[in-house]
Amino acid sequence: MKNIKISQIQMPVSPDKAECLACASDAVARAAQEGADIAALPEMFCCPYHVDLFPLYAEKEGGRIWQTCSALAKKYHIYLSAGTLPEEDKEGRIYNTAWVFDREGRQIARHRKMHLFDINVEGGQYFQESATLTAGNSVTTFETEFGTFGLAICFDLRFPELFRLMALRGIKACLVPASFNMTTGPMHWELLARSQALNNQIFLIATAPARVPDSSYVSWAHSIVADPWGRVVSQLGTEPEIRTIQIDLDEIYGVRRQIPVLDRLRTDVYRIGDADSHPSG
Amino acid sequence: MKNIKISQIQMPVSPDKAECLACASDAVARAAQEGADIAALPEMFCCPYHVDLFPLYAEKEGGRIWQTCSALAKKYHIYLSAGTLPEEDKEGRIYNTAWVFDREGRQIARHRKMHLFDINVEGGQYFQESATLTAGNSVTTFETEFGTFGLAICFDLRFPELFRLMALRGIKACLVPASFNMTTGPMHWELLARSQALNNQIFLIATAPARVPDSSYVSWAHSIVADPWGRVVSQLGTEPEIRTIQIDLDEIYGVRRQIPVLDRLRTDVYRIGDADSHPSG
Repeated sequence: MKNIKISQIQMPVSPDKAECLACASDAVARAAQEGADIAALPEMFCCPYHVDLFPLYAEKEGGRIWQTCSALAKKYHIYLSAGTLPEEDKEGRIYNTAWVFDREGRQIARHRKMHLFDINVEGGQYFQESATLTAGNSVTTFETEFGTFGLAICFDLRFPELFRLMALRGIKACLVPASFNMTTGPMHWELLARSQALNNQIFLIATAPARVPDSSYVSWAHSIVADPWGRVVSQLGTEPEIRTIQIDLDEIYGVRRQIPVLDRLRTDVYRIGDADSHPSG
Repeated sequence: MKNIKISQIQMPVSPDKAECLACASDAVARAAQEGADIAALPEMFCCPYHVDLFPLYAEKEGGRIWQTCSALAKKYHIYLSAGTLPEEDKEGRIYNTAWVFDREGRQIARHRKMHLFDINVEGGQYFQESATLTAGNSVTTFETEFGTFGLAICFDLRFPELFRLMALRGIKACLVPASFNMTTGPMHWELLARSQALNNQIFLIATAPARVPDSSYVSWAHSIVADPWGRVVSQLGTEPEIRTIQIDLDEIYGVRRQIPVLDRLRTDVYRIGDADSHPSG
């Protein structure tokens, strides 16, 4: 048994960065009160989801929001998946970046969104993250006392390769700050969360902003946890909510014993692996 | 527009091989009457799904059932996905093998199930295909006047690598003779069909035997077609049924333009491809 309590913080995002940060801080305090081991914030929790605003809201690693999140993790002795933020690197490139802090407030993971969100659905959602963002180049996993976790962001959910590589590194669960929209949400949100959990027989914890109907990009919300059978064990609605659930991460071993998938990969026929050396990012 | 008519033949399987073959033959005739371009039979359509029976029912490539299927395809000038059969090779190995015949009755594809079905779900389904079967080693695609198709079998559905490799070879649709059961069917059948269609933005046509409640292995049935949006466009019940539907294979291009996935693969970070040379099979 590896019981762990996870709080998903489905918070509204406004253009007021300080207001968002205060909301997130209150929510992390509440998650800690509920006994959470991990608190998970959504994608772009301190920045409206708009390409023109990413450079304006961007901060460097170690900046104000980063420091606040680190301090929250330490104060409440909790793992904090600090959603995502627009991150500016030394060369001025902007990424959609997720950080995770441990119970001492130390950064233990950074994932820069690897698959940028460029879609143009007829009569539906248009968005071109690549207009202002640069994609990350790294598969991201990190260690906790509960075992290995993965970290991915939103559109990354569409790429089984990324999740397989994390699974081959031994993850038991993957945290996915995300913000699907009113077009892709009803079609694909639950399907992708469940299927990436099932493919690798892991827990998948995808946390979205609450729905704010009059924003330029409307979040589908519905923060979700899927289990290694591909079942939905928790799914929120559209309103702001903090939901804390307990899961047993060792369930993955039972599922993998009953339906062996990872040890039946035909790596003699197909190969999946890291490409040759590439710039870190 | 690449409109194509596909008939899924959800037929019952009995221990009487001749009876099964007659049933399949009648069904292909009916599919042709309905104007089908492709008729699709289910997994093990002439053999009870039982490991001890696979060797007893096995035939060689070019054997009686193979010949009947080839003749049916030619007679009705139809593509015939001849479900699967236990196939014995020259060395006496037994495979779970799918063949496809073109409108002239020529074999144009052979897929030997690559991921054998070995599961042991507590309180649910137990099955060990590997007790009597050998796994195939090839990714299988084939050409038609409608474009490229893929071919996979049942448990293969759990492996995104196989479907990605077929997609990278340009398939527009994949035929999947299958027979999920009363444990994995309700949990995973629709989820896997939809997700493999969505992952690669293809049509997925999975054809199962009708349910026969008193058999040793009870088929979940529910033959399904999923579209490149990951939507269910057709799903049968549990009874014997021949269902013919028309789909436009070129829909894949619209979906891929609206949500680009295949051309956003991060092959600079991860690599997926055929492994080095291996024995054919």
